[in-house]
Amino acid sequence: MKVDFKGFMEKMEVINHIGFNEGEGLTRLAFSDEDMEAREFVKELCLSLGLEVWEDAIGNIRARKEGTRKNLPAILCGSHIDTVPSGGRYDGVLGSLMAIETVKIIMDNEIVHQHPIEVIVFSSEESSRFKLATFGSKAITGVLDPSKLHEFVDKEGISLYDTLVSRGYKPDEIKDMMLKPGDVKAFVELHIEQGPILEKEDIDIGVVKGIAAPLRFQIKLIGEEAHSGACPMNMRRDALSAAAEIILEVERIGNEESIHQTVATTGICNVFPNVMNVVPGEANLYIDVRGIETESVLRAVGKITEGMIKVCKKREIQFATNVITQDVPVLLDQRLMDLAKKNCKKLNLSYKEISSGAGHDAMNIAKFIPTALIFIPCINGISHNKSENVKMKDVENGLRLFAKMIIDLSQGK
Amino acid sequence: MKVDFKGFMEKMEVINHIGFNEGEGLTRLAFSDEDMEAREFVKELCLSLGLEVWEDAIGNIRARKEGTRKNLPAILCGSHIDTVPSGGRYDGVLGSLMAIETVKIIMDNEIVHQHPIEVIVFSSEESSRFKLATFGSKAITGVLDPSKLHEFVDKEGISLYDTLVSRGYKPDEIKDMMLKPGDVKAFVELHIEQGPILEKEDIDIGVVKGIAAPLRFQIKLIGEEAHSGACPMNMRRDALSAAAEIILEVERIGNEESIHQTVATTGICNVFPNVMNVVPGEANLYIDVRGIETESVLRAVGKITEGMIKVCKKREIQFATNVITQDVPVLLDQRLMDLAKKNCKKLNLSYKEISSGAGHDAMNIAKFIPTALIFIPCINGISHNKSENVKMKDVENGLRLFAKMIIDLSQGK
Repeated sequence: MKVDFKGFMEKMEVINHIGFNEGEGLTRLAFSDEDMEAREFVKELCLSLGLEVWEDAIGNIRARKEGTRKNLPAILCGSHIDTVPSGGRYDGVLGSLMAIETVKIIMDNEIVHQHPIEVIVFSSEESSRFKLATFGSKAITGVLDPSKLHEFVDKEGISLYDTLVSRGYKPDEIKDMMLKPGDVKAFVELHIEQGPILEKEDIDIGVVKGIAAPLRFQIKLIGEEAHSGACPMNMRRDALSAAAEIILEVERIGNEESIHQTVATTGICNVFPNVMNVVPGEANLYIDVRGIETESVLRAVGKITEGMIKVCKKREIQFATNVITQDVPVLLDQRLMDLAKKNCKKLNLSYKEISSGAGHDAMNIAKFIPTALIFIPCINGISHNKSENVKMKDVENGLRLFAKMIIDLSQGK
Repeated sequence: MKVDFKGFMEKMEVINHIGFNEGEGLTRLAFSDEDMEAREFVKELCLSLGLEVWEDAIGNIRARKEGTRKNLPAILCGSHIDTVPSGGRYDGVLGSLMAIETVKIIMDNEIVHQHPIEVIVFSSEESSRFKLATFGSKAITGVLDPSKLHEFVDKEGISLYDTLVSRGYKPDEIKDMMLKPGDVKAFVELHIEQGPILEKEDIDIGVVKGIAAPLRFQIKLIGEEAHSGACPMNMRRDALSAAAEIILEVERIGNEESIHQTVATTGICNVFPNVMNVVPGEANLYIDVRGIETESVLRAVGKITEGMIKVCKKREIQFATNVITQDVPVLLDQRLMDLAKKNCKKLNLSYKEISSGAGHDAMNIAKFIPTALIFIPCINGISHNKSENVKMKDVENGLRLFAKMIIDLSQGK
């Protein structure tokens, strides 16, 4: 199988000039001028391959290569091209261009396939602009109430709905663009890991088993403000010390549940009055627990809550908890995972089952049709950052594996 | 000894109308209109007793009653009448009016005393307006560089120097107003405890042994930001978890050193980036260690530093520390403490040696002449707050003890 890897990387180079600022990385916020320019590039690329190209009601780019048999469901593949502010050059765009490159590889190698192949580049995967992640894949699978599009606004106060209209899309027709069962057979997305596991363990490919869902909750701790000089140690009700015990409990329980690939993080700690000479009277913690096994996530949250109650009882601290989000983890398709592993072996690539802590469009599509998510290592696990980088050998490995999977699927394997 | 307690409380009532706002407590910021009005009230009160009354170059109010013998050094007594914003009705003003009331008690009871008695109401004890605490007592004991008065500015940007000039004081003459050795024999200040010890232990009087000096330092912890979903527990360098361990070390070591009346507090904890889905990459802690035994304070700081180094080594966290203030604790005069205790026994009051975590004018004067600081309990230990309150029996106990001490000292005891 002939793969023009150099040609592929040249296209990556071109698209990544769009929204690039020296020293600041890439910024292609959803539906910004830069995003629109990158969309044009993607559509041109697809057209140049002779594909049928269109955008749906909310801007998901679709490009279709027919198969040799009529009426078979399509093999869907792709990712996204929007970025976070000052983002990296591989998050999303790598998987998007790989999907297009795969069509080119099939053409260059004159590979016969029965199923149609459909490239999809999802709109607004990143939550940076509208505080809504994986918009395109949510919309296409019908989990998004169209009336809500007015409620998601960017920091200028412009709604997602108005943005879509101003870019020529037709958000009112969102219902007519849903994926239809029978039209699509499977979805495959390739993405950089955005974590350090593959690189640290020197593994070529991550075959994603599940996409973690965050259970996010807030703990508000109320102790008693006191003079940091005048109040003796044994008469204090220090909300920050209580918070400290809970932060360590979160970590300890995260470690305990990590055998189930669950992680637990206290990302936010706000202290009041947060001044030098007052024993803290209040602390607010925001905790994020994620895993691919709902049981493990719930057990972790249960243990954290138990620990918190003990700490608060001992310290005479009042508490209030508040669940912010509670999503359900997504398990990916076992048959597609097996196909990925089989092809890794054929291509002589090391692989590992891995879970994705971050969300991806694949998690929405997986609720609808069999879906695979393939990770390649990224350097130091860094992503959502201008320093995001990958090794070329990993990109090439990823492209070969991805193309092989699409070919297999499109040939009915 | 006849004491007109009702009359005393009426005067407290009158002065505490000045700067009072319903629901907000008392606000008499240093040299504000309210402070100036309260000063007038105090001066009138002293004049009505026939005392010689003057203000020095920076506004310390002085009022003198001569003794029966010429050329003996004076017994100095008093406190302050400025408040924090939304402060209480007893902090400072109680000790100030008690000093004046003591002169009245001496007159009413026709008590003969050899030493002159001098009431002093110090300027700007609270740091609220100019971020400079105990200004009046610092100035009168010469520890304040007059040229610095331009550098202390309030939030409107008006300097302490300009404020003094605008109120008719003469800050350039600050050098001529210093206390002179031989002019004063002793200083006694009465204050509410501003802490919970006396009330909780049901003790009438706190005989202050020492005034704690804060050693304040910052610890900056640098770990590594990581995706809270994608980074496994065992690959994290979580700056907040490290901070949590250190916060608990601070508390543990504070408890350990509390036998020496040392306390340790983490008052400030700032986390970066402090968002839900990122493992914290940085945390900044501000720690306040106070005690009356320098050795214990330094030992506590040493142990905290040791603990921090261990935590950071274990967690691969970089750290930087920065000392913000390092003052020396002040021990009060043993002979005056004994006099206070003897008088407590005579008046049938329970007492306890106590240390003051908060700063007071007494700490500056103590470096100059024998000084006593007497505490009475305050309800729930609350101060610097509109809820600040005291029991009337405690005020009366305090007034009787305070007057007795001033009488004894002015009679050469």
